[in-house]
Amino acid sequence: MRDHARATKTNPGRFFEDYRVGETLVHGVPRTVGAGERALYHALYPMRHALHSADTFAQACGLAASPLDDLLAFHVVFGKTVPDVSLNARANLGYAEGRWLKPVWPGDTLRAVSEVIGVKQNSNGRTGVVWVRTRGLDQNDEVVLEYVRWVMVKKRDEASPAPEPVVPDLKPALDAADLVLPEGLDFTRYDTVRAGEPHRFGDYAVGEVIDHVDGVTLEEAEHMMATRLWQNTSKTHFDGTGREDGKRLIYGGHVISMARALSFNGLANAQMIAGLNAGAHANPCFAGDTVRAWSEVLDMAETDRPGVGALRLRLVATRDGSVGTLRDEAGRYLPGVLLDLDYWALVPL
Amino acid sequence: MRDHARATKTNPGRFFEDYRVGETLVHGVPRTVGAGERALYHALYPMRHALHSADTFAQACGLAASPLDDLLAFHVVFGKTVPDVSLNARANLGYAEGRWLKPVWPGDTLRAVSEVIGVKQNSNGRTGVVWVRTRGLDQNDEVVLEYVRWVMVKKRDEASPAPEPVVPDLKPALDAADLVLPEGLDFTRYDTVRAGEPHRFGDYAVGEVIDHVDGVTLEEAEHMMATRLWQNTSKTHFDGTGREDGKRLIYGGHVISMARALSFNGLANAQMIAGLNAGAHANPCFAGDTVRAWSEVLDMAETDRPGVGALRLRLVATRDGSVGTLRDEAGRYLPGVLLDLDYWALVPL
Amino acid sequence: MRDHARATKTNPGRFFEDYRVGETLVHGVPRTVGAGERALYHALYPMRHALHSADTFAQACGLAASPLDDLLAFHVVFGKTVPDVSLNARANLGYAEGRWLKPVWPGDTLRAVSEVIGVKQNSNGRTGVVWVRTRGLDQNDEVVLEYVRWVMVKKRDEASPAPEPVVPDLKPALDAADLVLPEGLDFTRYDTVRAGEPHRFGDYAVGEVIDHVDGVTLEEAEHMMATRLWQNTSKTHFDGTGREDGKRLIYGGHVISMARALSFNGLANAQMIAGLNAGAHANPCFAGDTVRAWSEVLDMAETDRPGVGALRLRLVATRDGSVGTLRDEAGRYLPGVLLDLDYWALVPL
Repeated sequence: MRDHARATKTNPGRFFEDYRVGETLVHGVPRTVGAGERALYHALYPMRHALHSADTFAQACGLAASPLDDLLAFHVVFGKTVPDVSLNARANLGYAEGRWLKPVWPGDTLRAVSEVIGVKQNSNGRTGVVWVRTRGLDQNDEVVLEYVRWVMVKKRDEASPAPEPVVPDLKPALDAADLVLPEGLDFTRYDTVRAGEPHRFGDYAVGEVIDHVDGVTLEEAEHMMATRLWQNTSKTHFDGTGREDGKRLIYGGHVISMARALSFNGLANAQMIAGLNAGAHANPCFAGDTVRAWSEVLDMAETDRPGVGALRLRLVATRDGSVGTLRDEAGRYLPGVLLDLDYWALVPL
Repeated sequence: MRDHARATKTNPGRFFEDYRVGETLVHGVPRTVGAGERALYHALYPMRHALHSADTFAQACGLAASPLDDLLAFHVVFGKTVPDVSLNARANLGYAEGRWLKPVWPGDTLRAVSEVIGVKQNSNGRTGVVWVRTRGLDQNDEVVLEYVRWVMVKKRDEASPAPEPVVPDLKPALDAADLVLPEGLDFTRYDTVRAGEPHRFGDYAVGEVIDHVDGVTLEEAEHMMATRLWQNTSKTHFDGTGREDGKRLIYGGHVISMARALSFNGLANAQMIAGLNAGAHANPCFAGDTVRAWSEVLDMAETDRPGVGALRLRLVATRDGSVGTLRDEAGRYLPGVLLDLDYWALVPL
Repeated sequence: MRDHARATKTNPGRFFEDYRVGETLVHGVPRTVGAGERALYHALYPMRHALHSADTFAQACGLAASPLDDLLAFHVVFGKTVPDVSLNARANLGYAEGRWLKPVWPGDTLRAVSEVIGVKQNSNGRTGVVWVRTRGLDQNDEVVLEYVRWVMVKKRDEASPAPEPVVPDLKPALDAADLVLPEGLDFTRYDTVRAGEPHRFGDYAVGEVIDHVDGVTLEEAEHMMATRLWQNTSKTHFDGTGREDGKRLIYGGHVISMARALSFNGLANAQMIAGLNAGAHANPCFAGDTVRAWSEVLDMAETDRPGVGALRLRLVATRDGSVGTLRDEAGRYLPGVLLDLDYWALVPL
């Protein structure tokens, strides 16, 4: 038996009652990232986007060197928020208004700060929804990325009164004009041969669906290594004893990165992620699942950087190899769908 | 059939008769460590101590940058000794007088030298105990850490005469005054918010027991990757065919690092390890075990560095989630206990 | 059902008809390698060759620092060729004339270019053999390594006419004089104690067989991490659904690196690989196999570098622990043999 009196120094996490709109959460444990995280990202995911693979390619695109993968930066920032946002979360409900504002370079130190922007108790009186806007900052206190996330959180005490509901007004999707592109980015000398695929901006069309074909069967060791690397401490990823089925639930971000890496095959030139419009972890994912991915082109836009276009893409991860279908007649995600992500990527014109 | 005549160039390891008190063992294969080992350490263990996570945090504590984890340095040095000390060892019996003398920085090259300081044949005539004092040195031949370890080693020939027994006089625990603290370390501007927990030196009390709550289920791939990373070649960790149950025994140091990382939850401000007083691998550990940890405060002391206190801690790893109990009535470790470690950590006053 | 109309942007791979002798294949996705890949290589394989482990040791051998492992460079270059050479390959038939021309240093960016040097349709009319000479280049367009490889590739259309057969004239083995040794390499001050074993060039004899004794049981997570790290996208390593037995086939290069690392025990001073004469992946390898290795000295030669000799070695990986036997009476590889590799290594005189 665990003696709870002895656990008084451990972090119990925040409950729904602990969040106040307007409050700032300064998350702990800054993290310096570099060549090691970069290599591990390539070992854990079949990443081949050339701009994140080679300094030479990134330099030919106007950058000083190959930045760390955009999702790597996202995961590190996300991981920082877990002790203050997710420990008593029942579900990760959504993302919105995510923007990558500056590339993250080897040697940068990231930390995270979140602002509570919404709270709304659920009608069952046992849980509520909390909205936070999280910012990742580097060692110079410059914001490298930001996003809104909302989670369902347990109440500490069901009898505590419901707060005044505040539901933030969030954009269903960013406009291309909202995106902040890396300083110096220039795709006018873009080399599709070195990038590994010929398809440019003009080769895609809104409504086009791309089956990325390849699959990867997931392993416990891999998803735990990834999740630890982001210092994400959510118990459910490492210890199945809290679940009836004894399984370790895979961090949703592992599925995001796996699907994004698989999307190279057909979207090799969608080099950088600039915006996150929305995202749903449609069904839980476990070791042994074979993840595949498909994408749908949702929108297309030019940008103010030379030679750079933006594709708004739906990225879907499945465990059943289905392509192009997402929901049943009742509007629920089909059981084979793991992820439904809506993001902006930068491609050469 | 393996032809042993063909194995004459492979290392058969040393047997009990091969050790002479006063002898120096110069261990092979120096190793340069850096950003890659650092990231892998974070991927393999849920490490969040801020001083080993972020250059910015370490710099605010008076250091030039974030040093490599103290246990990472220990494992690399330990690994070097295996071919000369452990190949024919039946058991790793204990540790004493371990001190971290200098932080290890990315780019440092570590090597190891051991002095034989004791030998004592067992009454069964088949094995003996060997004590070695091991020093880890960097590329400038400066000692970065040292510790005493004793192991039970097979005799090559049971008929060989017993050596004169020499049992070294070892301290049951280091005094806080014996510790060597990193040059420049200064916790007067220590930021508990960035560290992730509020508890300072004065918030702990001798006798206090802390349940670290979190658990991690171990995987074969992870413990083998860790053990190889330290160039530890002990066959039993990689190849179960030598055991009746066919299982691969997990390197005891993997359990040490896992327990230390789990102890963040309640001891987030115990930033650095400065001394190793004692340690026992109470029971063997295998893939599938879910490791949890608890700590007990054994002693507390101030130090000569500004703002820096020292906690002497018992760190216990279990596979059954028990807390606060170690031994049965006969004084034997309970079967759920994996590790009983006694060390000094540095915390802000 | 997968809609193949939707997969038009994914890479279908080349078929036998797509190769023309004299054609140059410029492979995509250059890759910058560094401290992270180095550490992962040590985590994935029990590598202990001192020259690839420590800057100090490499510097004492006349090099600027410890280069990345020779096989790491090979795997990165090999991985680049997979989308253009292996996707529709039925079998990897052989290697020849492999030479390491320059060490690869942390920070180098590698890319690959292949020339088609032979094609020959098989008598069944369904497949053909394609020979390519692949060169790995660094960011200065200098060739760091080259090798010939031939594969059996499916025809797109069995009815298409057979091309004029061209079978390249390949050396059965490189002469020692063909090897290109690293600039500055000097073993006159070579320290066998630090290298971990006493055996020098003169301690070996042609015909000698060395049993490397140690074994490692392979895990899915490990071979997939390795294969992804080399950006090798061959589906069969990650997704077993394409095979009747549902198993993921382990990348042959994983077995090469594992066997080479195991060969430290008996060949610790065979520090660098300079030439690849031949190689066969004798039988498929799967997770759960316990890999062991043995070597045979095939030839010995001095070189033009001070203190440096060359050993031509046969390196055999097995999953049954057999030593010294390779083929049955009919000349077929025995079922326990995984790899038969013929290479040149550099050792101190």
